[in-house]
Amino acid sequence: MTDLERFSFNQITANSATLRECAEACTRHGVRWIAPWRHRLEEAGLSESSRILRDCGLSVSSLCRGGFFPAATHAERQQRIDDNRRAIDEAADLQARCLVLVCGPAPGRDIDGARAMVADGIAAIMDHAQQNGVRLGIEPLHPMFAADRSVIVTLAEALDLARRFNPEQVGVVVDAFHVWWDPQLYPGIQRAVGYIAGFHVSDWSSPLPGVFTGRSMMGAGVIELRRMRNAIDQAGYRGAIEVEIMNETLWSRPVDAIFEQAIESYLACL
Amino acid sequence: MTDLERFSFNQITANSATLRECAEACTRHGVRWIAPWRHRLEEAGLSESSRILRDCGLSVSSLCRGGFFPAATHAERQQRIDDNRRAIDEAADLQARCLVLVCGPAPGRDIDGARAMVADGIAAIMDHAQQNGVRLGIEPLHPMFAADRSVIVTLAEALDLARRFNPEQVGVVVDAFHVWWDPQLYPGIQRAVGYIAGFHVSDWSSPLPGVFTGRSMMGAGVIELRRMRNAIDQAGYRGAIEVEIMNETLWSRPVDAIFEQAIESYLACL
Repeated sequence: MTDLERFSFNQITANSATLRECAEACTRHGVRWIAPWRHRLEEAGLSESSRILRDCGLSVSSLCRGGFFPAATHAERQQRIDDNRRAIDEAADLQARCLVLVCGPAPGRDIDGARAMVADGIAAIMDHAQQNGVRLGIEPLHPMFAADRSVIVTLAEALDLARRFNPEQVGVVVDAFHVWWDPQLYPGIQRAVGYIAGFHVSDWSSPLPGVFTGRSMMGAGVIELRRMRNAIDQAGYRGAIEVEIMNETLWSRPVDAIFEQAIESYLACL
Repeated sequence: MTDLERFSFNQITANSATLRECAEACTRHGVRWIAPWRHRLEEAGLSESSRILRDCGLSVSSLCRGGFFPAATHAERQQRIDDNRRAIDEAADLQARCLVLVCGPAPGRDIDGARAMVADGIAAIMDHAQQNGVRLGIEPLHPMFAADRSVIVTLAEALDLARRFNPEQVGVVVDAFHVWWDPQLYPGIQRAVGYIAGFHVSDWSSPLPGVFTGRSMMGAGVIELRRMRNAIDQAGYRGAIEVEIMNETLWSRPVDAIFEQAIESYLACL
């Protein structure tokens, strides 16, 4: 039976709420895990955010996000690396189970060149992550984001990248919305034993309600969520399952209504 | 040097024009290839459409489309197969170099089951295609269409399907918009020698102007079109290169302006 033990609330699912409002809603609804976004930490500041989560008894399943490594010039790439080091510091402060890496698009048309920049970027932040005890999670994004968010678009590709490092230092984040279409998904999950650093859930309904805001509540779409969860369990992942839904209609609802719907759908579909 | 010898005008690029208007524009602009859509053949009727294209001295690079094999019931699947046989008859009448197969979505959540239905559907129409001298072209669609248009979403998957048959009977159609993001694209093209039945071009700009209508003119986006064309040439493909662009802004322009822009962009980018 599915219960709420592994349920994590990704902050963007209630985008109108502050981190404090999200955290307090977690407490009201019996949720023990949360996943904040970096730009929302700025609202209360890092130390205060960290204190809020501690006071609510919440653990941080992931911090969203580092990455965005490719850039046209060496100086810009160095700025991205510096920003990733700051993200690692923040993840360490929050004791996040992983720092999600959304790897970034190509600065021009050279997608393979950008993929090489991603590998170089991860290598450049490895030591800092290790020193701070932060695990990096490479998240392959849906190919519809290849031009503006991530040149890493399949689980196989993310795994090949992660395998250059120690799985305790670099893993992969499997987001159902991003990978469900892939004919190589289930072989990929089997191959990912030891590397899975996160599992994010939502659903794909058509027509899509948007692109960035194209996600639906679990059960409202075509994704075989339980099949995916079972495969990920069989691959040995025991961590949190994050509900991460960007959806304008959902965002317009009261925070408690969002939590109720997310919990009900999670229990029914995962 | 690129010239217009292999340029084909896919009818949907000028969606407001009838087939006759498109065909006459081809003549005015020195275009020798055209790719009609089946629902537009109904306007003038098949024989008259065929006569129009012949009178304009046009060859048909492909007919769009057969496919849509998966369905919930045996009776519905049979209806789809019957419709594919009619599409084959039409392709034969037009002497189309191939019938494009857009394979269809799953009727429910079982994407792998739907993939099996696609394989069964192609097998069921093979004899009819062979008897009529029509080559089938499996077109992998971008994964953002996996829920509503095609469970076949990568070149590798399309090739694996095609390889169950004789390459003269079943090939693959490489559409730049659908496959550009794939880290396995270039190995796939190398593996596709003898199987390439068509090459479609457009571009991917971000933000996307739409989903179905999300394509841009060649050069306006991030796709490495010349690299792709060179790889496809090296894989031995010598057929037409179809300009296929669904874009509301483009559609609002006069037909001759669309042709001018398509030809100029083709010569610059392919």
